[in-house]
Amino acid sequence: MAELSPTPRTRVRRLPSRASYDRTTIHAILDEALVCHLGFVHDGQPFVLPTTYARVDDALYLHGSAASRMLRGLRDGIPVCVTVTLLDGLVLARSAFHHSMNYRSVVILGVAAEVTDAAERLGALEAIVEHVNPGRWRQVRPPNDRELKATIVLRLPIVEASAKVRTGPPLDDAEDLAWPCWAGHVPLRLVALEPVPDGQPPAGVTAPNGRMHA
Amino acid sequence: MAELSPTPRTRVRRLPSRASYDRTTIHAILDEALVCHLGFVHDGQPFVLPTTYARVDDALYLHGSAASRMLRGLRDGIPVCVTVTLLDGLVLARSAFHHSMNYRSVVILGVAAEVTDAAERLGALEAIVEHVNPGRWRQVRPPNDRELKATIVLRLPIVEASAKVRTGPPLDDAEDLAWPCWAGHVPLRLVALEPVPDGQPPAGVTAPNGRMHA
Repeated sequence: MAELSPTPRTRVRRLPSRASYDRTTIHAILDEALVCHLGFVHDGQPFVLPTTYARVDDALYLHGSAASRMLRGLRDGIPVCVTVTLLDGLVLARSAFHHSMNYRSVVILGVAAEVTDAAERLGALEAIVEHVNPGRWRQVRPPNDRELKATIVLRLPIVEASAKVRTGPPLDDAEDLAWPCWAGHVPLRLVALEPVPDGQPPAGVTAPNGRMHA
Repeated sequence: MAELSPTPRTRVRRLPSRASYDRTTIHAILDEALVCHLGFVHDGQPFVLPTTYARVDDALYLHGSAASRMLRGLRDGIPVCVTVTLLDGLVLARSAFHHSMNYRSVVILGVAAEVTDAAERLGALEAIVEHVNPGRWRQVRPPNDRELKATIVLRLPIVEASAKVRTGPPLDDAEDLAWPCWAGHVPLRLVALEPVPDGQPPAGVTAPNGRMHA
């Protein structure tokens, strides 16, 4: 099924023409972004924390320290919201009111479950490293037992999810088109600069290709 | 007071050496980023949505459509979490375990209140436009009464807030330093590309300077 079914909670009501429930669109945004914002509730207070992740098929994997309050709480199976946003540009209209941003975002609602199966855990950690720098997993020293014990891996099904996308120029009102200011959009791009080696031995190995957005 | 007092909810417990409660640090991150992630709770479910904002002194202003479910809910004074993240780089260690990101983030907890004072509302909208493109407010067509009526402005005090910052190279374990792979960090930067005019009249006005991170 290419389309996810919107639920009352994921159906986009504001500017629904920007919404998509298409799996391919949702997956592409998740695969391009590097950081998600994970929301959860503790004592009635929402918390939103940035963290890395990876998508494998229809699952999003998160990981973190077993010493983390946050992850220990999530392990109990509480509702979360994971939001991923790619900021693509500034939209500068003639009217203050119509200023906007170009962006691609995904919102996933659900309950994250702890992954306990050893193979799935290792696969998730591999996916998270590969997500940041494809090809790196086979180069690095793999996790040892102590590190695996210190790591919690969570899986969130990508089922109740929606994307929202804005592209292109500002949408000024017709009566503002003669207003004497520049109007258009300024594309933004996250670029990788020259890799900085850490100066520890051994030297001379090849620097990675920087992973780049867009 | 240059330092905010951490509360049990904002005191950073994971890697506290990365934490800061310094007002200058917090404000600088808020001023550089363009988008925040706003978390709130509805029927026990957390929601996290990306949105624009601006800081004025010790307040964060958010705005949106009066038709938005989300903002109508927030207007009633419910707890929110606003998180702002600047992604500064990939940290590629020799061990999978020590892979990380360089980042600067701010988390603000509190209750957002609707701004009803006309002057403060207009000042907040000006700050939001100026935040994206400094100097633009005096060039554009200001909001009219209809647009102002259609807009909700919220103020969140920047009081219960913390910053978290990671910079620099990976921190590999000593016994991994001879592992034969490249290690270091790859700086990331959000850059503004050439502005794209929307092709509507009038032509010939000067393009804005793209606002750029870092």
